[in-house]
Amino acid sequence: MIKQRLFTPGPTEVPPEVLIEMARPVFHHRTERFRKMFGEVTAGLKKLLMTAGDVLTIAGSGTAGMEAAIACACPRDRKVLVSNGGKFGERWVKIAKVYGLQVDEVQLEWGTALQADTVAEKLSSGDYGAVITVHSETSTATACDLEAIGKVVAKTDAILIADCITSAGTLPLRTDEWGVDIVGAGSQKALMLPPGLAFVAVSEKAWKNIDAITPPAFYLDLKAYRKSLAKNDTPYTAAVSLIRGLKVALEMIGEIGIETVWARTALLAAATRAAAEALGLKVFSSQPSDSVTCILLPEGVTDEQFRPALRDRFGCSIAGGQNELKGKAIRISHMGYVESLETIGLIAAIEYTLAEAGADVKIGAGVTAAAKVLKDWR
Amino acid sequence: MIKQRLFTPGPTEVPPEVLIEMARPVFHHRTERFRKMFGEVTAGLKKLLMTAGDVLTIAGSGTAGMEAAIACACPRDRKVLVSNGGKFGERWVKIAKVYGLQVDEVQLEWGTALQADTVAEKLSSGDYGAVITVHSETSTATACDLEAIGKVVAKTDAILIADCITSAGTLPLRTDEWGVDIVGAGSQKALMLPPGLAFVAVSEKAWKNIDAITPPAFYLDLKAYRKSLAKNDTPYTAAVSLIRGLKVALEMIGEIGIETVWARTALLAAATRAAAEALGLKVFSSQPSDSVTCILLPEGVTDEQFRPALRDRFGCSIAGGQNELKGKAIRISHMGYVESLETIGLIAAIEYTLAEAGADVKIGAGVTAAAKVLKDWR
Repeated sequence: MIKQRLFTPGPTEVPPEVLIEMARPVFHHRTERFRKMFGEVTAGLKKLLMTAGDVLTIAGSGTAGMEAAIACACPRDRKVLVSNGGKFGERWVKIAKVYGLQVDEVQLEWGTALQADTVAEKLSSGDYGAVITVHSETSTATACDLEAIGKVVAKTDAILIADCITSAGTLPLRTDEWGVDIVGAGSQKALMLPPGLAFVAVSEKAWKNIDAITPPAFYLDLKAYRKSLAKNDTPYTAAVSLIRGLKVALEMIGEIGIETVWARTALLAAATRAAAEALGLKVFSSQPSDSVTCILLPEGVTDEQFRPALRDRFGCSIAGGQNELKGKAIRISHMGYVESLETIGLIAAIEYTLAEAGADVKIGAGVTAAAKVLKDWR
Repeated sequence: MIKQRLFTPGPTEVPPEVLIEMARPVFHHRTERFRKMFGEVTAGLKKLLMTAGDVLTIAGSGTAGMEAAIACACPRDRKVLVSNGGKFGERWVKIAKVYGLQVDEVQLEWGTALQADTVAEKLSSGDYGAVITVHSETSTATACDLEAIGKVVAKTDAILIADCITSAGTLPLRTDEWGVDIVGAGSQKALMLPPGLAFVAVSEKAWKNIDAITPPAFYLDLKAYRKSLAKNDTPYTAAVSLIRGLKVALEMIGEIGIETVWARTALLAAATRAAAEALGLKVFSSQPSDSVTCILLPEGVTDEQFRPALRDRFGCSIAGGQNELKGKAIRISHMGYVESLETIGLIAAIEYTLAEAGADVKIGAGVTAAAKVLKDWR
């Protein structure tokens, strides 16, 4: 009798319309029916990511998409600049090393983001073939200024690979306009689907790199996906049910328009930060992402008691801290199928759970602050 | 991209567990499999209604169940006392007249409830064979003291027929202990199912009446249902999918216990009334029901603009006023699958919508009042 609500930064809530679509009978992927659907879905993804380039769909998690980009598009004879400001930056460093790339790691303090100036300075040497950055670093709830970084990289012959797994469909992202060469995204975030699909947008500039490199992998060889995409097809068995769910999800986003989605996400994040402030809690990050908010738990409240209580009593699942934030912070997602009213409800549940844990909380202070911000929800 | 939420006093929200169960393949009702399930469901209904008597399940709306009770159980040679304090009381008067009963109608002012004293006084004449009352009158959001009325009627040879369509599973209801002879209930309220099933609990005292009357109907002849029930069966084709959904719903209620459900419903109602007061709105009814709250719209806010705005912008469906309250009031359900957090969210949506309509509303006042009451939600 407790409704389950996912406020985790992936997987996120899946709309009933999408769940029902995915529950429909599986049909075969080597059919005209599939190719028609896949063509429509690809067009929708291009619109969402604001690119005229190819968008490849891989059956796999977001990591698979990013690995494909790193493995296939980074020149071996030049350095790769990889920013590491959290769990995911750390992962892209690891992958780059697995493929024997010349990694120059920019180690960032947690809660800070890669700056365009840093990139400009590094790239001025002419030694770099690629820059890898995380647009929204989920582990620290921090976003970089991808537009500024894109404009710096675009002036060079290096390519920019961006992990947009928790930014695509939530934060403003204009792939072509900003000069982002490769965008990696996943299904279980703003796209309101279960996990299982990765998306890789590839610019002409990036294809030139890819074409010059002998594919170091088979399943993650982006060229195989490009070749099939020309026929609205996939090189290996397509995840048909997820793709038909994606079609519905893209239609739902299309109905209100991606810019409305961005505005809503920003408002949910602003409301959550306002609630935290009203409750005397500290928001972690010097450049907070609007996709996910990281809040430090007050003294005396442990994560071991807090999150299970929130989930068991109110059905609200949120994420905890990772690495240095483990046990000290909570993370709340604003991505995808989450709305103003339930965010206010979540704030109430957080107030109750903090009070229960002995924290000094004025019930209603957080919800009032959030409600005031969310008045502008459209 | 707007989540739809039913806060209407029937139909109410159906849990996904129940929806999935009902989506399973239909099986035949004349099978051992069905009889086993139906036996379990009947046992669950008896527990829910706190009766050792028969509980009959009819494929039909709540009205069908009440009509069956009125038609089959009211002696023709004596008067029937029917309280009419709203839309539903009015309906039972109509039905009693269709069957040619000697109706003594107690016309109540809207927002007031039948009093036990009135019943005692009327019944003291010895002229009455039955009393028909509405436990929770949905149109006026008013509850009577069914326990007190039950105890009065139990001392006489008259039977008590109670419309418990919006009280069974929401308000305390102890059928046998209170001496309620016939309880009418429906699937689309606290039982968290789509519309389509009526339930009629019948005491031994009521069966004596029924056995003495020639059935004036075929489909709604309660004796036919009793005969089939002895074999865990239904006389006519059973609504198999609804009944399998009912099994899951009863299990869900059973997990937390009916008394917890009553307490939760009462708390949601108290929170909603507190929010209304904090917003300077008037709660209609001198004896408010905890199943549904009726709130008068402030001057200058019309129902034509208010409810569509609430639904279109926030996906929250609530009911309007009926008859004399038409256009002047809103009604919010607290029945079934509705929780503390979403009630707080609904209050926020009401605040926004009132403000948008030009009412003088302090954003956060209602949600804070509701959040304070709902702190005790368990």
